[in-house]
Amino acid sequence: MKKSVIQALLLACCGIAATASARQPQNIIFLIGDGMGPAYTTAYRYYMAEETGDVSPTIFDDLLTGMAGTYPDDDTRVTDSAASATALATGRKTYNGAIGIDRDHRHLPSLLSEAKSRGYTTGIVVTSQINHATPASFLAHNESRRNYDAIADDYLGEDGRSPVADLLLGGGTSYFIRPDNNLVKVFQQQGYQYLNQYQGLKQLTIPALGLFAPKGLAPALGSDHPHRLANMTAAALKALDQQAKPYVLMIEASQIDWCGHANDIACAMAEMDDFAHTMKLVKEYVDTREDTLMVATADHSTGGLTLGKHGVYQWKGSALKKVSVMPEQIAQLLKESPEDLENIVQTHTGLTLTAVQRPIFLQALKDPDDTNVEQLAQLVKHLIDEATYTGWTTSGHDAIDVQIFAHGPQAEQFRGFMDNTQIGKKLISLLQPIPAGS
Amino acid sequence: MKKSVIQALLLACCGIAATASARQPQNIIFLIGDGMGPAYTTAYRYYMAEETGDVSPTIFDDLLTGMAGTYPDDDTRVTDSAASATALATGRKTYNGAIGIDRDHRHLPSLLSEAKSRGYTTGIVVTSQINHATPASFLAHNESRRNYDAIADDYLGEDGRSPVADLLLGGGTSYFIRPDNNLVKVFQQQGYQYLNQYQGLKQLTIPALGLFAPKGLAPALGSDHPHRLANMTAAALKALDQQAKPYVLMIEASQIDWCGHANDIACAMAEMDDFAHTMKLVKEYVDTREDTLMVATADHSTGGLTLGKHGVYQWKGSALKKVSVMPEQIAQLLKESPEDLENIVQTHTGLTLTAVQRPIFLQALKDPDDTNVEQLAQLVKHLIDEATYTGWTTSGHDAIDVQIFAHGPQAEQFRGFMDNTQIGKKLISLLQPIPAGS
Ligand SMILES: [Zn+2]
Ligand SMILES: [Zn+2]
Repeated sequence: MKKSVIQALLLACCGIAATASARQPQNIIFLIGDGMGPAYTTAYRYYMAEETGDVSPTIFDDLLTGMAGTYPDDDTRVTDSAASATALATGRKTYNGAIGIDRDHRHLPSLLSEAKSRGYTTGIVVTSQINHATPASFLAHNESRRNYDAIADDYLGEDGRSPVADLLLGGGTSYFIRPDNNLVKVFQQQGYQYLNQYQGLKQLTIPALGLFAPKGLAPALGSDHPHRLANMTAAALKALDQQAKPYVLMIEASQIDWCGHANDIACAMAEMDDFAHTMKLVKEYVDTREDTLMVATADHSTGGLTLGKHGVYQWKGSALKKVSVMPEQIAQLLKESPEDLENIVQTHTGLTLTAVQRPIFLQALKDPDDTNVEQLAQLVKHLIDEATYTGWTTSGHDAIDVQIFAHGPQAEQFRGFMDNTQIGKKLISLLQPIPAGS
Repeated sequence: MKKSVIQALLLACCGIAATASARQPQNIIFLIGDGMGPAYTTAYRYYMAEETGDVSPTIFDDLLTGMAGTYPDDDTRVTDSAASATALATGRKTYNGAIGIDRDHRHLPSLLSEAKSRGYTTGIVVTSQINHATPASFLAHNESRRNYDAIADDYLGEDGRSPVADLLLGGGTSYFIRPDNNLVKVFQQQGYQYLNQYQGLKQLTIPALGLFAPKGLAPALGSDHPHRLANMTAAALKALDQQAKPYVLMIEASQIDWCGHANDIACAMAEMDDFAHTMKLVKEYVDTREDTLMVATADHSTGGLTLGKHGVYQWKGSALKKVSVMPEQIAQLLKESPEDLENIVQTHTGLTLTAVQRPIFLQALKDPDDTNVEQLAQLVKHLIDEATYTGWTTSGHDAIDVQIFAHGPQAEQFRGFMDNTQIGKKLISLLQPIPAGS
């Protein structure tokens, strides 16, 4: 074969540019859709399509390379976010609930701690509190994900003066500004810029700590700022580019999982939309350069989501675009104006109550002083599920395999099926001993 | 780069041997797991694992290359087996129920009809009746999958003397030996060997028609012959190898879907096991030669199967190995010996009735003359689902994407995400105008 043909073949089919320089990524961007099993990416494609129009591939479709198994280091087969994030962050299996430690409670080095010790800039961008299970598994060690305060304390490093992450964006003031300890001050003393308003992202510099909510950020659905993960990511990439050093950035769409736990499909699609915007933005960034690898996956699937119900061969995902606010907000509006039942439901879900459903809502709204907003929100979700044929089987997680998406140099390493620990191991193995450009 | 390095790279990462001869497959083996969504392949991995032991990758894990969307040519998003099989067979979308025709009722050429017209030997091996929706979409044209007799008639070709398939193995005597028409005789008149006993497979020659049941074959679960798809496939490959010509063989594990419709997880795992044995056997065959491509996928997922329920983080798939016969058989045994309730349940499911479940079974068995076997079977399935945390949301199909598996020359074409029509189009495009070796 001619050399030009071989080079074209290598590039086209292997993603390998024949020049050696492009073969190892300088920067790694690792994206996690918490709870985003394959039913979520499928649902998002049909959610985005017009009701009777063509179906277009999504950014997830464009970048799919493989799938991963997610079972934890016990006999349950169903992982929680701590065990799976530890697997993705460290390449090691652990028990459900464990943050960055194995079942013998040994501290495990993570992609971010390994990167930091090799001179990379490191960052996390999430929509949960920044000390939630997934980011925590990259930055801390704790025998239980529930020890939120201890995990927040651990973000300063074991000596209280060497944080693993140079950039932290998400929620969590209630854990970082506590009566017993103002961690924000300590970060500031170590030179970190502190932000608590999204506007501050325009002047983001590194190191920085940005906390935009007491715990998780406001949900995307019904928000004035639904693409907050994409916006934080854009700011992070701009700031990272001003550094002279290579970097590793972990980005988590944390709340797909929360919508899944709540069995709330409209909520899930809004979070998926923010994540899709983030993935697109990162892909465009990767496409402008040859030195950055992006890898995305989910830690597990949540809720036992299925797209089909009651024997009907239909899933009406497009209709979900008419759900304009969270079911809890709709429930609150109903509580305030029960006489407006039909109108409120129609306006905020696009749905009309059936003869069966109306009396159930009327019953729940009977006594204005005793209306249970949470129970009403369940009714709203049930209404949406029935209209779209959306099924759920659990308020917890599901064992189903998750997808892997990759783009950029060494993306071909993420093809096919692998255990979730392999993703962590491969990413760590791509870190360079002494990063070029540092 | 050195030539040897380049060849190694091409082979390792692209599956391209640098010798031109290996690049186009002579033979194509296309395997379809009907209803086998990603929850089924995940479930099978944990079903195969020891309860507290290690988890090993399955043949599906070893061969995973991509995923496919399955929506039909209407606004339902949820396909039936006819529309999806037509997409896989012809590369064209159609409406639910259509066999080998598009929505304007135009006849579509299929992978098998195209192969036949180019001089390939063609065959199908299935566990349903051979005129069921999936094989029918490769061999016939009909506006409705329900027209079983007309579809069977169509298997002889439009002139009644030019069948598309040279080899047909599965069930279906009730459609092929009818009072109004004995199609078996017509096939025999055209030189086809006719088999109605599995033993006959030892002397299988081509052309042949093998029908081993009135409709579908006996279910794998509880059968003396659980790997009947694998055994038929082994015989088919041996017979095809005795031909001088290249071939295209379609193999369907038809009954994974039937177990899914019945929301029967033990049934599904037994069918998956037969399919896994078939996949392994085909892979070993492909590995012995350089001229055969195998591609496997599912037409859709069935039942809204999920591996997690009631908020419990557990899926006890390993326990399903103790279910030794079909729930309907257990129900029949209970009807015959209601006094043996505990023992029969324990012996055939490995499960012990709880204090809540026992009275429900006793109630159903109260009147021996009036015991409803179907209702009892539902109770047995419910018992198994609760014990293993298996969830279902529909007796129909689900819209979730399915996996693609490929091995052999040109396997790299099946990487990443694609629409199900792309699989059919790519397979047809791999047919050679005048097959070498013919
Ligand atoms: Zn979760
Ligand atoms: Zn079906």
